[in-house]
Amino acid sequence: MSETPADPGMHCPAPKHVEQVTLAHGGGGRLTHSLVRDIFAKAFVNETVHDGHVEVVSARRIATTVDGYVVRPMFFPGGDIGSLAVNGTVNDLAMCGARPECLTAGFIIEEGTGFEVLRRIAESMAGAARTAGTRIVAGDTKVVERGKGDGVYITTSGFGVCEHELDIHPRSIRAGDAVILSSDVGRHGMAVMSAREGLSFESQLRTDCRSLWTGVAALIAAGVPIRCLRDLTRGGLATGVIELAAAAELEITLEESSIPVAPAVQSACELLGFDPLYVANEGCFVAVVPGDQADKTVDTLRSVDGFEQAVRIGTVTDARPGQVSLRTKLGTLRNMMMLSGEQLPRIC
Amino acid sequence: MSETPADPGMHCPAPKHVEQVTLAHGGGGRLTHSLVRDIFAKAFVNETVHDGHVEVVSARRIATTVDGYVVRPMFFPGGDIGSLAVNGTVNDLAMCGARPECLTAGFIIEEGTGFEVLRRIAESMAGAARTAGTRIVAGDTKVVERGKGDGVYITTSGFGVCEHELDIHPRSIRAGDAVILSSDVGRHGMAVMSAREGLSFESQLRTDCRSLWTGVAALIAAGVPIRCLRDLTRGGLATGVIELAAAAELEITLEESSIPVAPAVQSACELLGFDPLYVANEGCFVAVVPGDQADKTVDTLRSVDGFEQAVRIGTVTDARPGQVSLRTKLGTLRNMMMLSGEQLPRIC
Repeated sequence: MSETPADPGMHCPAPKHVEQVTLAHGGGGRLTHSLVRDIFAKAFVNETVHDGHVEVVSARRIATTVDGYVVRPMFFPGGDIGSLAVNGTVNDLAMCGARPECLTAGFIIEEGTGFEVLRRIAESMAGAARTAGTRIVAGDTKVVERGKGDGVYITTSGFGVCEHELDIHPRSIRAGDAVILSSDVGRHGMAVMSAREGLSFESQLRTDCRSLWTGVAALIAAGVPIRCLRDLTRGGLATGVIELAAAAELEITLEESSIPVAPAVQSACELLGFDPLYVANEGCFVAVVPGDQADKTVDTLRSVDGFEQAVRIGTVTDARPGQVSLRTKLGTLRNMMMLSGEQLPRIC
Repeated sequence: MSETPADPGMHCPAPKHVEQVTLAHGGGGRLTHSLVRDIFAKAFVNETVHDGHVEVVSARRIATTVDGYVVRPMFFPGGDIGSLAVNGTVNDLAMCGARPECLTAGFIIEEGTGFEVLRRIAESMAGAARTAGTRIVAGDTKVVERGKGDGVYITTSGFGVCEHELDIHPRSIRAGDAVILSSDVGRHGMAVMSAREGLSFESQLRTDCRSLWTGVAALIAAGVPIRCLRDLTRGGLATGVIELAAAAELEITLEESSIPVAPAVQSACELLGFDPLYVANEGCFVAVVPGDQADKTVDTLRSVDGFEQAVRIGTVTDARPGQVSLRTKLGTLRNMMMLSGEQLPRIC
């Protein structure tokens, strides 16, 4: 070991005034520290973002979740990959009926990514976490060579606490239950698509990306005996409801005329050839509740900011287990199938 | 919506006999389901890998962590990106003194990645999780276009339960404490480097990638009043100890002659110009314990499979707060500095 330099740090002095990520930022040394300290720790106020975090939790049921985010473009009307990464994971926890206790975030960063981009993303994440009433408590950054990534990929994980006795799960769904939709569908997918394609109606389309926990918390507080919750992300309303019907081994019938779609979303879908029922949302969920709780569920949701359009859209029956049928505006019944292909790549 | 196809699934029939990932596997529809079901859920035996998972936990202190894995090559002597992703996160929890309760895994997969590669990785993860006594309970897959990724990137997160009253943290370190090293250093970095460079001594170099929880659990069970734990990953032993000294605002003095380095690692380091003290490990940690507990710590660790080489390598003093000095084999004192640059890119 006598060949070892006395001070290995001297062999690679920290570059000055560099405003983009270099491979050296992935090395675990001083540059990695400065990246974490100057950008992520600064944005995630008062939080030491380190490898592990210990949290004192008084409840007994803990929900865990993970989601990767690769959306392109990284910034789009109404949101960005950072707010998406926070809200997406908060919403996965909310769908378990869990209060989002804390999040972790792993960043895979392409060499050459501008610090300004990272800063905007980190600040957006911090803001979204504050709004959702949660905190980012652990983080990790890895850097890959140019052409081995695409700007920034984020994987967020979270844990949350279930402060109720409900078994919120497809197995709790029963024939006779009502399906309640929290808001209009298709905004996120069409906002990202329009930003990607540079379409002129872009200004009217904004993502619906937001925390769903406020809506779920209101239902729990109101004592609604929730059977199951599902956020309507990749694959949209159709895919979410099809997954529920399959898992519950029951049929779900939807009324197309009840499903709100904003005019701008409807126009964009018609222009681009998409079905809004299959377009991704990031601030939209369905709640399955006992039939006699439908009105209470709708009223409770409508009293919460952002859920004013909540509406009953369907019913659970035991007619054709695992199937979903849509009564169209023309009155015909359409069998809804899961998409096999890629409708909107890299939408989240 | 009358333009909507009656069965959107029919527009993109599932390709048959395709054995690699297509962008369509990232769409959230049928192909995504088959990817998750056939590869990941199958490997993570008996576990439904879905968006959220609820766990019943009786303890009150929960540790959380996250780490991204971008190692190249993805397969190397003694391990692969999958076992690394599991053990790395298990070890982050172990360093909090937490039993690894469960893990989540997010995959960012480049279009064109072979299913066989995914299968090997998933099986390796499942095996590593079993060995470490934990489970992978939630997962997510995203697919990015060719040239926007590099095979598979994995971000694992985990939570663990602290079943003790210790405050395992740099703030607990005191002057007079002993620094115990769990095993020889430099194996992981040199195994990956040799695989990458196709070097002939590859056969003698295997990663040390493994769970550290068994060693930590033995120390807790033996009643060792652990002050702090640190695994020695990116940046190696030197970086880990420098971080501890800085966080504790105390000096740490290491004895070079006490630090075990395998002959094959030493030779590879000399050939390639690396300092083994700065080379990444994935199955190696330091424990800081009160000085009078050093022998008990070493004896306890040596009784656990894989930690037979545990040894005291240093002492904490209050001489020069935040500094680390190495007494070299020649008897001189060398000031250890954190690397600023990238010694071994994409080592984990």
